[in-house]
Order: sequence, then structure tokens, then C-alpha cells
Amino acid sequence: MATLTLALDAMGGDHGPSVVISALAQALTTFPEVHFIVVGDEAELTPLLQQQQLLQHPQITLKHASQTVTMTDKPGYSLRAKPDSSMRVALELVANETAAACVSAGNTGALMTKAYFTLKTLPGILRPALMSAIPQQQGKLAFMLDLGANPVCDSDTLFQFGVMGAEAAHQVLKIERPRVALLNMGEEEIKGNDVVKATAALLQASEHIDYIGFIEGDDLFSGKADVIVCDGFVGNIALKSCEGLADLLLDNIKSNINAHWLTRWFVKLFYQRLQKSWDWLKPDHYNGASLIGLRGVVIKSHGDANARAFFSAIEQAVEEAQRDLPGRIRDRVEQVLLAQE
Amino acid sequence: MATLTLALDAMGGDHGPSVVISALAQALTTFPEVHFIVVGDEAELTPLLQQQQLLQHPQITLKHASQTVTMTDKPGYSLRAKPDSSMRVALELVANETAAACVSAGNTGALMTKAYFTLKTLPGILRPALMSAIPQQQGKLAFMLDLGANPVCDSDTLFQFGVMGAEAAHQVLKIERPRVALLNMGEEEIKGNDVVKATAALLQASEHIDYIGFIEGDDLFSGKADVIVCDGFVGNIALKSCEGLADLLLDNIKSNINAHWLTRWFVKLFYQRLQKSWDWLKPDHYNGASLIGLRGVVIKSHGDANARAFFSAIEQAVEEAQRDLPGRIRDRVEQVLLAQE
Repeated sequence: MATLTLALDAMGGDHGPSVVISALAQALTTFPEVHFIVVGDEAELTPLLQQQQLLQHPQITLKHASQTVTMTDKPGYSLRAKPDSSMRVALELVANETAAACVSAGNTGALMTKAYFTLKTLPGILRPALMSAIPQQQGKLAFMLDLGANPVCDSDTLFQFGVMGAEAAHQVLKIERPRVALLNMGEEEIKGNDVVKATAALLQASEHIDYIGFIEGDDLFSGKADVIVCDGFVGNIALKSCEGLADLLLDNIKSNINAHWLTRWFVKLFYQRLQKSWDWLKPDHYNGASLIGLRGVVIKSHGDANARAFFSAIEQAVEEAQRDLPGRIRDRVEQVLLAQE
Repeated sequence: MATLTLALDAMGGDHGPSVVISALAQALTTFPEVHFIVVGDEAELTPLLQQQQLLQHPQITLKHASQTVTMTDKPGYSLRAKPDSSMRVALELVANETAAACVSAGNTGALMTKAYFTLKTLPGILRPALMSAIPQQQGKLAFMLDLGANPVCDSDTLFQFGVMGAEAAHQVLKIERPRVALLNMGEEEIKGNDVVKATAALLQASEHIDYIGFIEGDDLFSGKADVIVCDGFVGNIALKSCEGLADLLLDNIKSNINAHWLTRWFVKLFYQRLQKSWDWLKPDHYNGASLIGLRGVVIKSHGDANARAFFSAIEQAVEEAQRDLPGRIRDRVEQVLLAQE
């Protein structure tokens, strides 16, 4: 008996719908209580479902959409010119409450624009934010936001990101009182730009937030904070720079090790281990990013996602939908905004 | 016979003057043509020089300064209240052309403020920038700026950073036509904030710059660009985030390897190798950062620098002074600004 319905944009991502259908096959057994609406080109999806013997599966509904948003479509263009795209139809299933959540590996800019347009923000929320879990020392996780939905933010917006992130960390990461920090170029109060300083004042003044102050980039993974707030420009560049560094380190290890064959052999083994552990360190590859602050759950899976990664994004959508994260955020924001008046 | 004079702020840095004096001992033999003016508290420096048998050394002049800028002094305070600090006196030796360059491991904010105030910017230059070499794949180097001197920049300032960075890469990294890129949250032209877009237009329009467009954080170390331009807020957070990731990876490797003793032994060896290769990846620890755009060479060594690292900063100061980098930047900027008129 289905208690939750999820809409899957089957056409997004670099690797096409086969990745989505493989992830779906796994999700069916993991989540027997979830119903899946698979949105996309029927002619393309039918044989894929048939291959996996899922065509008449009771947990699956196939919903045709005649258009597909490409990875290079500009957000405004796709919004105007592709009203029947699989992405848009999946989002509308959430907007009209047929589905509780939507997962897409499609074009990030288009997804954000369409989600904002279709679902709207929660009452009082200025902007939705792209949020992801990032690894911390001792195997913990923290939420970081915004990661690219908003290249420019004012202090009210960043303050709300702190409130939303704290509620999400409480609900999803199960942290009783999440410690909220602002990412800055120094820990001293005088450092940074005017927006960051004004946001610090707002967070400091709110009784509903455990604000711990500024943190610098070198504390992004140290476990100091449970929620790390920044604008989308800084957040995107910080995490992508880390990806770049991981690539450089692998390159460096590969090219510098010229030693005894026994060492090389161990290095090879170790290198595979490193790569594996670094996959885990690239959260946008192997977990979905949440677009929060909207009237519904929207999970962005990485465009390059394989079936395992898309399955992680589905898992995250189920978790957020079951906990009604949008409802919890709405309540929390209402409470905080009322206290400010 | 001395052909070049360097001023060393002997009192800056977390580890005190002993680090500076040890680095100086090495520099004397490496650079027999350089004269060093060691600036700081005479009572503290005399026994240190005596220990190293450098007290009467013909390449050394000891210059007393009665005050020291601490690592926690606010820039404005140190400027007003410490006119006879070792940092200020060392900078003044450059300003009055007694020395061609100054090296300090002291408080970054204070150094930038004092350098700007004492040396002034080159004609036409809006703001000085903090620039550092960062490692690239295949063992190359690129220059990145600004790394924290200017938390907020307009497009004219960022454009000038591109011009200055290109000249520095040409002179110091010996790259014939340095490829200049702007750090952004996406490679497409529509991505980013207004300042980045306006800067792109300026760089694109200049015939004197090999502008290659936007790069994302994951290309920071890929070798795609020779000069990477961003504002100080973004640059500081990008590089510090990478430092944080390197720490996380070391922590992760240490805690996850529980295997056969032989494997552990190899891992231990390998771990030491990794740490060594990562030291090289932390350029601000082991090389100086240049404060460019000023009427003189100013090198900021990391506060945590050991003697080897401070020696690297001295090396860099010698290189920039010998090539008269400020003069070259002045000429290049003049040429570019004239072409714009």
C-alpha cells in the first residue's frame, strides 16, 4: 500500500533514462510503500521498463512528457519554450500534490527556475537555496547552503538560509541543536563584506538559532559547524575547488610514485581505496542536493550521476518527504519571523 | 658586492624572530649579492644574530624598531598606534628606496594596510592584490589573485588584477603569453554576478590580455589557466576550503586503514609521502604571497612559516626585485590603460 508518491524526471542527466530506471528498480524493493511516477518520453521509457520487467509494476505509473530539457538549455528559454518537459511535468505533480517529492538529474539552472516558478517559495521565504550534506571529520555530516541557486544574496536571505538549514539538520541529520556558522574570509568580527556582517548581526540576535560565528574555509570539513551558510557564488566555488584539489592530488600521487614493484602494487591498491573514499567526499556526485524553501521536496541529482547516485537522491527525497521537511521549515520560519516582529 | 637590498620584518609571524634569523643565515650564502636590513627589537635580535655568528656580517645591517605588530592587532589600530613597528619601518625602507623589497610573516591585514599607506599603489592602479602561486597538474604553477586583500571588488579592479597577474606570470613564471581566466560559478556567459560579467567584458575587449573566459572551481588546479582572477573574499575561501579538504583526507586515511600489518606499514610510508606532497600543495605555508600593484615589492610569508618557508619568501622577494616586477607592472598597466582610452 503506497503511502508516499514520488515523481522522477526520467529524462534529465548526462547518461539518459537508463540510469533512472536502474535506480528505480532498486528503489522499488527498498521502499515498498512508495509509488513512483516516472515522467518522460513514453517511446523511450517503455522498452527500458520492459527490459527490467517493470512495465506493469503496481508501484509504477508512466507519465508521458513530450519535451526534454537539455543540459545546455538556458533556464529562461526552457521555462518559456518547454512547458511539457519531463522536468516541468514532474514538478507540477508536486505542485498539485499528486506527488510529495520530485527527483531530477537535469540542468541545475533550469530545475531551479522551474521549481521556483512552479512550486513557489514557502510563506515568508525570500529565495529557495541549494543545500547539500558535506563530510566532516570523524565521519559526521554538515549541511552547506547555498551552493549555486543564488549568486547574490542580501542579509535577510542568508539569515533565512541559516534558519532553513538548521531545521533541515535537525530533521534529517537528527542533530538536537544544530550549530550554525557563516562562511567568511576571517573569524574576526571585522572581516568580510557588509552582507556577511549584517547577516551575523541577524543570526546573533535570533534566539531560535545556535549561531557560533564566522568560520573560514579551512573549517569547512572540521566538524566545527552543523550548518554552513554562504551565498551561492561562494558556496559553488568553495566545493568545486575542493573537487579540483582532489583531482590534483590523485594526479600527483599517480605521477610521483616510481618505486619498487611491491610499493607500486600497494600504492595501486591504496589508490583505489583513496578514490573510493574520495567519491564519498564528492557529495554532489553521490547524494542529491536539496532545493529547500519551496512548497514541496525537490532533489537535484548530479548530472553525471550513475544508478547508485540517483538511488541516493531518491532515498533523500523519501526521507525529506516522510519528515515533511517543507512543512517543518514553514513552521520554523513562521516562528522565527514572528519573534523578529 | 651588494646589488640589491632587502628589508626583513624580523618580529612578525607566530614563531618569533628565530625563524627569520635562521632563514637569513641560509639566504646569505644563496644570495651573496644581496644586502639584508633586519628590522626589529635590537635587544631581542642581537643574541640571535650572535648565536648564528652573524652579528658583524658584511651583508647584514640591524635596524632597531621599538614596536611590534601582534597577530591580533586590528589594521587601523596598528597603523595609528604603532608608527615605529618593525613592519612599518621595513616598509618605509622600501618606500624611501633604501631597500628594493620587504618580507614579513606578520599580521596580513596590518601588512596590507601599512603597505598601501606607506608605499601607495602604482599610477593608475586602483587596489593592490594578494597573489600566490598555486600548483597545477603536471607540476606547473599558476598565479591566483586576489586572496584576501580586497573582500569586495568592482570590475575595473578585477580587470587590473588580470593585467597585473598576467605581467607577473610572464616575468616570474616565465610564461610567454599567460592565459587569464575569471573564477566563476559556471562557464557559461550568463552565469555569475554582475561584477564578474562586467569584468569578462573588459578582459574580452583588451588586446593586451589572453583572456580564456570563466573557469569553475574544479579547474583551479587543472592547468587550464595561468592566471586566475577573483575577489579576495572568494579567493580566500576557495584556497582555505582546499586546505580544509586536505586535512579531512589525511584524517580519513588515518582513521580508515585497519588492515594487515604489512599494509599498515606501507600506508604509513605512503602517508608520510602524501603529507610531504600536500605541504607543497599549501603554497601559503611554503611560499610567500606577493602584495602586487604597489610601488615596491612586498612579500607576505605565512604567519606559521618555519625557516624553510620564510627562506622561500626571501627567494621570491629577490626574484621579484631583480626583475623589477613593480616597474614592469607599471609599464604594462600604462600600456593597457592607454589602449582603453
